[in-house]
Amino acid sequence: MSSNAQQFASDNYSGICPEAWAAMAAANVGHETAYGNDTWTARAADRFRQLFETDCEVFFAFNGTAANSLALAALCQSYHSVICSDTAHVETDECGAPEFFSNGSKLLLAPAHQGKLTPGAIQQIATKRADIHFPKPRAVTVTQATEVGTLYGLNELQAISATCRDLGLHLHMDGSRFSNAVAGLGCTPAEVTWKAGVDVLCFGGTKSGMAVGEAILFFNRELAEDFEYRCKQAGQLASKMRFLSAPWLGVLENDTWLRHARHANAMAQLLAERVRGVPGVDFMFPVEANSVFLQLSEPALEFLRARGWRFYTFIGSGGARFMCSWDTEEARVLELAADIRTAMGG
Amino acid sequence: MSSNAQQFASDNYSGICPEAWAAMAAANVGHETAYGNDTWTARAADRFRQLFETDCEVFFAFNGTAANSLALAALCQSYHSVICSDTAHVETDECGAPEFFSNGSKLLLAPAHQGKLTPGAIQQIATKRADIHFPKPRAVTVTQATEVGTLYGLNELQAISATCRDLGLHLHMDGSRFSNAVAGLGCTPAEVTWKAGVDVLCFGGTKSGMAVGEAILFFNRELAEDFEYRCKQAGQLASKMRFLSAPWLGVLENDTWLRHARHANAMAQLLAERVRGVPGVDFMFPVEANSVFLQLSEPALEFLRARGWRFYTFIGSGGARFMCSWDTEEARVLELAADIRTAMGG
Amino acid sequence: MSSNAQQFASDNYSGICPEAWAAMAAANVGHETAYGNDTWTARAADRFRQLFETDCEVFFAFNGTAANSLALAALCQSYHSVICSDTAHVETDECGAPEFFSNGSKLLLAPAHQGKLTPGAIQQIATKRADIHFPKPRAVTVTQATEVGTLYGLNELQAISATCRDLGLHLHMDGSRFSNAVAGLGCTPAEVTWKAGVDVLCFGGTKSGMAVGEAILFFNRELAEDFEYRCKQAGQLASKMRFLSAPWLGVLENDTWLRHARHANAMAQLLAERVRGVPGVDFMFPVEANSVFLQLSEPALEFLRARGWRFYTFIGSGGARFMCSWDTEEARVLELAADIRTAMGG
Amino acid sequence: MSSNAQQFASDNYSGICPEAWAAMAAANVGHETAYGNDTWTARAADRFRQLFETDCEVFFAFNGTAANSLALAALCQSYHSVICSDTAHVETDECGAPEFFSNGSKLLLAPAHQGKLTPGAIQQIATKRADIHFPKPRAVTVTQATEVGTLYGLNELQAISATCRDLGLHLHMDGSRFSNAVAGLGCTPAEVTWKAGVDVLCFGGTKSGMAVGEAILFFNRELAEDFEYRCKQAGQLASKMRFLSAPWLGVLENDTWLRHARHANAMAQLLAERVRGVPGVDFMFPVEANSVFLQLSEPALEFLRARGWRFYTFIGSGGARFMCSWDTEEARVLELAADIRTAMGG
Repeated sequence: MSSNAQQFASDNYSGICPEAWAAMAAANVGHETAYGNDTWTARAADRFRQLFETDCEVFFAFNGTAANSLALAALCQSYHSVICSDTAHVETDECGAPEFFSNGSKLLLAPAHQGKLTPGAIQQIATKRADIHFPKPRAVTVTQATEVGTLYGLNELQAISATCRDLGLHLHMDGSRFSNAVAGLGCTPAEVTWKAGVDVLCFGGTKSGMAVGEAILFFNRELAEDFEYRCKQAGQLASKMRFLSAPWLGVLENDTWLRHARHANAMAQLLAERVRGVPGVDFMFPVEANSVFLQLSEPALEFLRARGWRFYTFIGSGGARFMCSWDTEEARVLELAADIRTAMGG
Repeated sequence: MSSNAQQFASDNYSGICPEAWAAMAAANVGHETAYGNDTWTARAADRFRQLFETDCEVFFAFNGTAANSLALAALCQSYHSVICSDTAHVETDECGAPEFFSNGSKLLLAPAHQGKLTPGAIQQIATKRADIHFPKPRAVTVTQATEVGTLYGLNELQAISATCRDLGLHLHMDGSRFSNAVAGLGCTPAEVTWKAGVDVLCFGGTKSGMAVGEAILFFNRELAEDFEYRCKQAGQLASKMRFLSAPWLGVLENDTWLRHARHANAMAQLLAERVRGVPGVDFMFPVEANSVFLQLSEPALEFLRARGWRFYTFIGSGGARFMCSWDTEEARVLELAADIRTAMGG
Repeated sequence: MSSNAQQFASDNYSGICPEAWAAMAAANVGHETAYGNDTWTARAADRFRQLFETDCEVFFAFNGTAANSLALAALCQSYHSVICSDTAHVETDECGAPEFFSNGSKLLLAPAHQGKLTPGAIQQIATKRADIHFPKPRAVTVTQATEVGTLYGLNELQAISATCRDLGLHLHMDGSRFSNAVAGLGCTPAEVTWKAGVDVLCFGGTKSGMAVGEAILFFNRELAEDFEYRCKQAGQLASKMRFLSAPWLGVLENDTWLRHARHANAMAQLLAERVRGVPGVDFMFPVEANSVFLQLSEPALEFLRARGWRFYTFIGSGGARFMCSWDTEEARVLELAADIRTAMGG
Repeated sequence: MSSNAQQFASDNYSGICPEAWAAMAAANVGHETAYGNDTWTARAADRFRQLFETDCEVFFAFNGTAANSLALAALCQSYHSVICSDTAHVETDECGAPEFFSNGSKLLLAPAHQGKLTPGAIQQIATKRADIHFPKPRAVTVTQATEVGTLYGLNELQAISATCRDLGLHLHMDGSRFSNAVAGLGCTPAEVTWKAGVDVLCFGGTKSGMAVGEAILFFNRELAEDFEYRCKQAGQLASKMRFLSAPWLGVLENDTWLRHARHANAMAQLLAERVRGVPGVDFMFPVEANSVFLQLSEPALEFLRARGWRFYTFIGSGGARFMCSWDTEEARVLELAADIRTAMGG
């Protein structure tokens, strides 16, 4: 097996998709104005507005760590707090980036139900304290698709945003895998965001097949005041911006983003189908997007690793995450499924 | 003239050089471990160590704003200060990024002489105050090549670093155009950095023909403690890191970086030669790297703009900056020079 | 009952003790050098060194929020983390101050056992993650006496500091009620701090009978480098410093601090004795310092409130905290105890 | 001469005035609710509203460093900037506190004219840059009385605030010596603040004869949203708040603050009169408040120091600042004046 063989560890292991690559090549002609004052960037922003059917404010950042942290910092002051699930990526895997960008905003953790926040949990946390000795809740962040591969349904989102409105909280969506969510829900981008009450969305480009880059969409335009200065000061303004924006044109054109996401989701479904019913294999979460979380045995995990497979595990628990990407090949999925069956003695 | 015609506004207007592009293509094969744990990144870091002839610590960030600010933050606490020239990019064009990343470190400005700091100015600023009501100087930053296209000679750097050592100050080099400096000085990268007493260098990749990316090299390895966490928290760790590191391999191979820089410098010299002696044209600074700063008349600037040229000017002063890049074509330089002559009635 | 009647809500409800008042009066004569360069401040610092039997670095801050946050910020960078119990005041009642002062250091919460951290919990949290996607543990903070009125024994502290040393973690002690802890343990200040491996102590002056003020003692002097600048920048350097430092002389003289603390502890014991055995009254925690945590019924709490008593409660739980101070009068304790008995139908 | 002899180095050298002391004593009775929920604090806030003839928001902080920095942070985001004179205390003597509290807001310096900003200078700085590579101006801060003992007249303030309104800038007043300014101008507090367009004032308590404490008054109440959280998080909420607020009642009662300020100003005038005309003595600035800046000779300064006088000097310039306070005695002023005459060979 080659060292570049497809893996299921992360959708970050995949490379640049052909459409993004072609757009970069098209943009790599001659000179262009720097810092986002170029035509590629203007066109990409317009394309987002068209796709989301609204006149939102659009910004481009280098990665998800920054995009989410900058967006949350725009919703909060340092003495405010952000409600998230205890499995939220901003809490578990950003090395304190939200606290750094906001100069101290605290994340308040709700126990996740299948990776999701609920209106009840938000309500409880937001109203638990009302004294100045505890940071005032000011925003809620949901991850769509969630970190465990589940999806918020439209009604779930609407209920959450209604709760947010009642409590005076802004609603942020971490859309690192937004493509997979839209593909999974079969709705429009507008329906699952501003029509459901989302104030700001971070739309992941890297996991959608780009080399680098994330789009930040403010549907609530007032919250975007001076946001371009915030990006610049925080080291998130690309000088050769066209290479961050043009790939979006490639990916958004002809619903490429959606096609890729559907493929990744389909691969996850395929994997799920092939291991469902194998004795000892349990599904940790419903398979709704592009990842499959399986409860296996430790020896089985060891067997898979020895066979060269790379995937994330949860210490001492026998749990494993298998993530599909835009480029995941059916053959590799079947290979993996077969090995899982063998590993479990199936 | 096409809208993508070569301009002299900024070396950021140029695209991706063929060698960086080829390296990205080579890296865009199959799956790779994310977040820098890939072979491209390891190889690029090693290549830097080889080039600089020392076992330095190497990190990759997205852009110069972040690279310089992160490096300075590693040298300072919030109540420390950084001495720089009043023309330093960190002061004039980073929207307060150094202060943001460091949570408040103040920049102390010395009047620049041809864009350069001097040991005397550093000494004066560093010793002006010694009470706790003013932030304690802890670092010096020099830009090489400077913002006005001049170069610190090796002896100038050695004198500065000797002063820094005497005063207990760390020495940082903003090498956004480090390639052009090495090309201009005709020395080795080692000679102009750690051998001259530089603690940390930010080596610009974007202006060297990459799409995005900057390398941070700690020659003083102790200062790099936990720096990888700092990068991650500040939103500067790329998930698909190979696309930031592989282009360096393309650019560092066969001295491509140096060849490109020499070309850009030569184009600046060509422009300078062609306008030298034109009545009314004054050189604002010596032409030592890839930029030419000319004092022209306001009507001349207006004429040039009307002819479609893009360049930076200094409000109301008649001053203009013309910047050459790795891809600047001789024909365009001659065209520009001719237009300048015409503009000045030459 | 007068509106200034003694309460059991907080030891912050009490005023300035006579000894601190007298010292302020003595210091309020003529002119003194500002910003801590006065003789009162020098003498107070020396007095601390004498009391702790070591040449520690001594600083004065306005309150505990700042003292603890500044000390923790001195032990950490923004991408580091601090391990504390989930009942720690820095987590529950400082409105994100530690995150603000450190520019983002995360607090990692361990489930408290009777308000205390254990070596096992520290070990588990410190070693749970070792990747750069999570802030690196760098310090541990213990509160002595704890927020629930319990004490770390010397052997407990030594075990914790041994664990810290093994893991490369600094050890900070929040000594908001340090006086009460020393009084309760019957040990010397040195034994319960640096001799037990504590690096830095915040010694509470306000709860020891001062109007305002907290002392920060660095036993590990290297950690105090430039700490005076940190205090100044963070708005914690008093211009008329003598009024923060002189009261310490009054309170430290003749073991006044210890006498006051013993009194407060004794009042807590008295209250505990008088309600022990009352049907329905449960002790939530052992009474080891100056507070008594009782499980009562909601109607009983209502009865007490109606009788004019002020105390802290835990929403919907029937739990109540009764805090004694340097000035708590025996008669008031007996009055309260009698009312509790009545409230519980005793 | 006793070591506590009155000096002219700083008004911070003086102690607590009798009226503040009496108020502290009156407040030091029994128990009071902590953290500002006490009657003293409510009454002090009301007294400010009465004095300023408007329903402003009132907060109390420990010192001027914090009060000014917190107020400016409330007016700005990290990527904004604050225009001040190059002699402003926030720039020269706060160790980067404004940058720290705001997480990076830059101070933009205008050359002071007799310590004062002008509308023209504000206009020039505010409009110099309009790109995202430089922090966007968002606030102006004026010091009243200025650091060099001069005063902004009402018309000067009105012109500045008109300029601020035109440019969308908030106006902050550092009133460390606000008392002396009102005394010098002979106007009402309202006239020189909100009636002249000031949005927020930091009113110095320490220099008005208190041990510690500063009041922050938001005339533009919208800017005070959640400001109590900001104070708490930044370590500026006193637990025994009554000892910060009660002294204000003592000082504001019967125009004590104004009487003290008038006395200090009169002492400065007396000193000025007594040395005016002495050969070699030049006045560096008009004497309008409580300080006298004199140009003397270096030997004269040496003579004065040898005689035991303490005062601030400006390195190598022969300049000296003599500051009067609420407690400055006429006899000491005459003594000093006589020594200055002798020193200058008068």
